[in-house]
This record gives sequence, C-alpha cells and structure tokens, in this order.
Amino acid sequence: MFEDRSKPRTEIKDLGEFGLIDFLTGDIELVQKSSEYGIGDDAAVINPEGKKVLVSTDLLMEGIHFDLAYVPLKHLGYKAAIVNFSDMAAMNALPTQITVSIGLSNRFSLEAIEEFYVGLKLACKAYNVDIVGGDTTSSKAGLAISITVIGLVEQEDIVYRNGAKEGDLICVSGDLGAAYAGLLILEREKSVFTANPDMQPELDGADYVLERQLKPEARVDIVKILKDSSIKPNAMMDVSDGLASEIKHICKQSKLGANLYEDKLPIDQKTWDAARAFNMDPTMFALNGGEDYELLFTLPQSEFEKLKDIPEISIIGYTTDAGSGINLITKNNVSTPIEAQGWDGLSDKLNDENTTDQ
Amino acid sequence: MFEDRSKPRTEIKDLGEFGLIDFLTGDIELVQKSSEYGIGDDAAVINPEGKKVLVSTDLLMEGIHFDLAYVPLKHLGYKAAIVNFSDMAAMNALPTQITVSIGLSNRFSLEAIEEFYVGLKLACKAYNVDIVGGDTTSSKAGLAISITVIGLVEQEDIVYRNGAKEGDLICVSGDLGAAYAGLLILEREKSVFTANPDMQPELDGADYVLERQLKPEARVDIVKILKDSSIKPNAMMDVSDGLASEIKHICKQSKLGANLYEDKLPIDQKTWDAARAFNMDPTMFALNGGEDYELLFTLPQSEFEKLKDIPEISIIGYTTDAGSGINLITKNNVSTPIEAQGWDGLSDKLNDENTTDQ
Repeated sequence: MFEDRSKPRTEIKDLGEFGLIDFLTGDIELVQKSSEYGIGDDAAVINPEGKKVLVSTDLLMEGIHFDLAYVPLKHLGYKAAIVNFSDMAAMNALPTQITVSIGLSNRFSLEAIEEFYVGLKLACKAYNVDIVGGDTTSSKAGLAISITVIGLVEQEDIVYRNGAKEGDLICVSGDLGAAYAGLLILEREKSVFTANPDMQPELDGADYVLERQLKPEARVDIVKILKDSSIKPNAMMDVSDGLASEIKHICKQSKLGANLYEDKLPIDQKTWDAARAFNMDPTMFALNGGEDYELLFTLPQSEFEKLKDIPEISIIGYTTDAGSGINLITKNNVSTPIEAQGWDGLSDKLNDENTTDQ
Repeated sequence: MFEDRSKPRTEIKDLGEFGLIDFLTGDIELVQKSSEYGIGDDAAVINPEGKKVLVSTDLLMEGIHFDLAYVPLKHLGYKAAIVNFSDMAAMNALPTQITVSIGLSNRFSLEAIEEFYVGLKLACKAYNVDIVGGDTTSSKAGLAISITVIGLVEQEDIVYRNGAKEGDLICVSGDLGAAYAGLLILEREKSVFTANPDMQPELDGADYVLERQLKPEARVDIVKILKDSSIKPNAMMDVSDGLASEIKHICKQSKLGANLYEDKLPIDQKTWDAARAFNMDPTMFALNGGEDYELLFTLPQSEFEKLKDIPEISIIGYTTDAGSGINLITKNNVSTPIEAQGWDGLSDKLNDENTTDQ
C-alpha cells in the first residue's frame, strides 16, 4: 500500500541472463578474509581458518512469511539477511557468508528486485557478511527467498540449546513483543486500506514497534559483549517464534523446567502502548509475539556479578528440574504453566528444523 | 500422470509441527565424521578437518524446473540432491552435507512429502552425504525446494573454471544428450495424456534416456578416478545447461577459444534413436540438451597417456587462443561457431549465479 507507482518498470527478461547477474552482483566485494572465492564458479570456496563451520538455512515464502502489501522489498531484503545472521548469534557466533536464492514471478520488475538487493546488501555491509553465491530463477507465482548463512567459530565458543543446568539464570537481550505490536499495526492499516484506498495509514508514534517488525537487527553485539565480559552461556537461542516457544526448546533439550517472572519481562513502553491500543495484554506480546530476534540464554548464578552492569541484558527467571514444568510467576505472585503458541501457528509456518528440538 | 490415486492421504496439519519433523528427519543418522551436529539447533556444526569448505545452492520451483505431471516425487527428491552433489564434483570435490528447505502448499499430503524425502535420503545414502539442517514451510501455491550443499576439499585439489591453458585437451565424462531425449519423451507423453487420459504412455525402449532425465547421477566416481590416476584438470565444471553453454563458460573465464569435434561427442545409441524418432539432430541434443550432469574438463596434452585407458572419459577437442572463438568441427570437416542456447532459455530459468561466469 506504500508502493510508489510512478517509478519506472524494466522487465527482467529485457536485461538478459548475464545482464541480470551483473546488475545484481557486479558490485559485490568480499570483505571476509575467509571468503576465498565468491560468485562465479560451481561453488564458493571458504577458508575456515581452523575454526568450526556453522550452517543454517531459511526459506521465506510470499503470503506466508511476508506480505508485500506492507513490507517494502528493501526492508524484506534486509530482514531476510538479518533472520539468518540471528541464527549465528544464537550459536554464539558471527555470520561471515551467505548464499541468496530467489524465485520470482514476472510480476516483479528489475527495479523491484534491485530494491530487495539494496536491502540485502545493506544488511551484509552492516554485519560484514559476504554474499558468495546463490541462484536466481523464475517462479510461477509469488516470491520465494532462500538464504543459507555460514559462520566460523572456535569450538570452545559454540553454545547449543541443550547445555542449560538446573538453577541457571535465564536472561534475554533487549526487549520483547515490539515486532508483534508492529505487525498488528501494519495488519490493521492494511485492512483499513483494503476497505478504503484513500485512507492514509495511521502510524504516528509507532516508529519503534514498526521498525522492530520491518527492520529488525541480529544481536551480534550481544555475542561480542558476552565475549568481552568473559561470559559463556550454558545454552542459547534466538527469539524468533516467541519467548514461550523458545524457553520450551531450551528446557526440553536441556531436560529442565523454568520459572519466568512476568514483572521481569523487558517490554518497551511503546510496545505497552500498542498493546493497550489493541486492548491486549503486553505480557502475551512478550511471550508469544515472536520475530524479536533477541537472544535468550542461561548461565550459572555465579556469573551474576558480571551481568549486572550490562544494561542490554535482563534476568527474567531461572531454570528448575524438569518435573516442575515451565511456569510464569505472574505479577500477583501466582505460578501458571506457560503455553507456547508462537505467533503464527502450524497453518502458517509448518516448522523450522533449525529452530526445533530435533 | 503416473500417480497412484489409490494411496492413502494424510493431511500434514494433522501430524502437527513436531510430528512432521520427527516423521521426516527422525531416522536421519550422520555418517560423515565432519558432521558434528545436525538438525535440532539454530545451526549445524561442521568440522572442516583442516580442509577448505565449498558451498553451493540451488532453488527449484515447481512448473519451472520440474513438472509433477511426469516427475514422481521420489525421483524429484533424488534429483534435487544429485544436482547439488554434481556442483561439488564440478569443483573436483565430494559432497559431505546438505541442508534441505521445502515450501509446500496444502495440495501436498504427508505421503507425498514422504516420497520426496525417500528419494532425497536414497541419494544421500548412495553418496554418503548427511542431511544436517533445513526448513519446512507452507507455500501459497506449488512446491519450492532449496538445497545447499557443502563439500570439504584440500586446497590443492580445487579445480575452478578459469584455469584452462591454451592447447589443453577438452574432455567429457559419460555421454551427452540423453537427459534431453528423456525430457522430450516425457513431454510428448504428457501431451498425449492431456489430450486423452485413457492413453497409456509409450515408453518402450526409452529406459536409458528416461533414467538419465528422471534419475541422474553426479559423477563423483570420475573425481575419484581422476585422483586415482593422478590427474588434476586445469579447469572443470558440470554439464547442467548443455555442453555449448558450459564450454563457453570455461573459455570465457580462462580467456581462451576451443575447437570441439562433432564426431568425438559421446552420444549413446539410445539417445541417437530418440533424436531420430523426433526427427532431430543428435548433435544438438549433446550440445544444447543439458541436465546430463557429466563433467567437462581440460588438461595438458601431456596427460594423454594417463587418459586413454579410462573408458568413461572422451576427448572431444582442444582449447585455442581466445581470438579463434569457440567452434564445432563438423563431420564434414567444416568449422562453425557454437551458439550456446541452453535447453530452457531465459524465460524458464533466469540464471544461476553458481553456473555463470561472474
């Protein structure tokens, strides 16, 4: 609905096969020393420099994971990269390379796909990640985006989901629920626009939550802060489906339970305001909102002293024995089992093997 | 058109998110020592064991790269893996791990997606490749398959496209054009079936070319044979788009020309028969057919003695200076420039960054 229809439109087929590749990837420069060979052969060549290699992949489908009615393609490109970078942060590592495959129907012009790449390259530049390969192809309908991310990490730095110990502090970076608040506002304005295309969107004061939805960041800064503070989490993952879902993964894989404190959940005032405007409970945003891409991790209580001077990190609870289950201690001091719903459920996103407890 | 409609149909949503993942990946065992951690965390962990890491990726879209009217899902799974394994062979390496992402609409039952995985796992077992991650998600329409393949290789074994030298022998493994012959037969039977669903397909005697189309193999055996014979090609790639297109890539990247001899092109008798049945030129099948997944490579003439006892390899020409262009010396001893068309052209497959000369 925010598309500028006055822009020129070039058909991709007018450019020819090699013209398109040159156009999209001709200006790509490799900045990582480990990127020995990028686009242009049957495979990219990476020098792992003695480190372990992390690999994660994501497939984003139009109409399932994004709605181009309110997600500008530039933002989509940025977010598609970030979501993958976040998977590296979740392993306590930094991303170094990605491959990018897109399938697009003839509905998309050259300018449209260029916008996508502008966002993608912006994210890569901000995080020092090299685009080393990919595949660009036609699709019968809609846009499909598949990104694979590579990260190099020292063996001793890797943090899995299954390493939490009983009595660990449970921590989360940044704040939760804002991305979901942003999504609700975009969905609302889309319905208003669908009903009456002359209506202007009401987005005043929603900048923060909209940015959290449209232009999220991967918390590689937290990975660096933890390292600088000599903190190594026992278990970690990123919050893509929602806190409730993620704490369940860590607990299941580590064979533990958890108590989370409602009054400790970090929720921004803007998220609070948005939740109230929708007559909804901000705690539910934080628990089931998803797409915040914050880091959720556990560490021994002995690390508390190191933690307390890091403003970006909140302690939200502690792990218990598996038999105690996963509970929220409400503001009224009532313990209630946490149900993990995720924000979109099975019908939208069947599963993500990299974010589930296989 | 060969689908058995009597089979049971289970809706994927009936299984639930974790049920589906368990069902598809629960029996996966890691066989490569380098696979330190597979499915189940935010990323897979690979131990490169001091080697370089090759990465290549492919996105296959229904209706563009495959037609489920005549490609059984089991074969599709097998071929989707093989196409990627072939990219590793093209670098003179063996594949070790893949990640597999699929986006599928609710048209697909659990049994259908199981078939796909059966084929995929069969290929992985045959080539000792581990499935270490992926993403399974919904799609609004059609099936999208994205596979990323990893290979580990010693620095000194890597063969790029750009290393050919003037006067090199140009060699190709196996035979060419059969996969295209198989495709033409499948397309023909599909039209017949569309016109009259009671007609039975006429596939007698076409087993070889159909298998080359439906169940191709990656020539990792050639990689091993070359190593055992102490042969290292100067340049190599796999024949996915057709010989004419691939020789052009090698020549462009190596800044050379080439003379290919029509009477040296390895064409199986069955391909010959199929071409004649369609009243077409078998040489065109070999030059522009594509999807043969044979290896095309160049090496110094001094290696001739080592080559001549390897029946799987044909010498089809030699490289020249760039100014001489890329030519076919016909059976009548006429030199004619080779035009690279590929078999599907821009409208079907826009480009493949990993198989183009960036």
